[in-house]
Amino acid sequence: MAKRHTQTCPVAGFLNIFGDAWTLLVIREAFYGATRFSEMQRNTGIAKNLLSDRLSMLVDEGLFEREDIGERGARYAYKLTEKGRSLATVLVAMAQWSNEHVFGKGREPVLLAERSTGKTLKKLTPRSANGKPLQWRDIVAQPGPGANKAARVRILQSEHGVDETT
Amino acid sequence: MAKRHTQTCPVAGFLNIFGDAWTLLVIREAFYGATRFSEMQRNTGIAKNLLSDRLSMLVDEGLFEREDIGERGARYAYKLTEKGRSLATVLVAMAQWSNEHVFGKGREPVLLAERSTGKTLKKLTPRSANGKPLQWRDIVAQPGPGANKAARVRILQSEHGVDETT
Repeated sequence: MAKRHTQTCPVAGFLNIFGDAWTLLVIREAFYGATRFSEMQRNTGIAKNLLSDRLSMLVDEGLFEREDIGERGARYAYKLTEKGRSLATVLVAMAQWSNEHVFGKGREPVLLAERSTGKTLKKLTPRSANGKPLQWRDIVAQPGPGANKAARVRILQSEHGVDETT
Repeated sequence: MAKRHTQTCPVAGFLNIFGDAWTLLVIREAFYGATRFSEMQRNTGIAKNLLSDRLSMLVDEGLFEREDIGERGARYAYKLTEKGRSLATVLVAMAQWSNEHVFGKGREPVLLAERSTGKTLKKLTPRSANGKPLQWRDIVAQPGPGANKAARVRILQSEHGVDETT
């Protein structure tokens, strides 16, 4: 894993956990129902030492719980916490973008669907507080309550930043 | 950048482009309005050789257009394409998750808002075709038209996979 970003920025905060080529594949495996080290290793192709690092980090970050199942050779089961399961939105956004822009219509390898109906999910779109779909140009960054001075200056100098106090 | 994932999977496809600690920060910079190499370098802290690699890759992948602006010392401007701007959904999903689960309520460094009203965006949630909010357990993976045999077997063996033909 690269060194941690120190900027107070939610994208940087996300990348401090998931900013490598493997960690989100481990979350994908949990989505598919894998709970054992060996399953995750086999299904992703990740090196064992890397998987071991990533799982420890994900337990430390509160995304997985490690349960001692006391079996010979497969001692632990890794189960997503509520925090881990709340990544569904990010995974759906990535998968929909990738299906549309990397693979393209008619070549999607995997579609995400509602379990009870089998119908493909609606396309996620950023929306205003009252539900209007928004484009990139309609969205601005505002300093939040946790913004430090550097983050505040950074946002206000950008064309996508606004001062919430004006 | 790690070696490319060869699995036909939309999450792997996403990570083949964005699976490092920096590439999404470059996209964030474009969101903030940065178009020059020097701005992006200063605002992210990325090493120059890495930024150069990443920008070339993002141009090759069709996320940025490189425009020759013919100025001494700052020859190129990098502008997001429509494909690049369509990443807004992924960035919003990441930022909202990170604000909620990494920083926590009341400590958000940056909030995303609608430009015209200044109101914070609605929280993104996966939804069924008819708009019902879905949890992790309500979502399944289906083989898409581009699934190869390996992907098909993988999905059908998982508890989050269903055979769309039954």
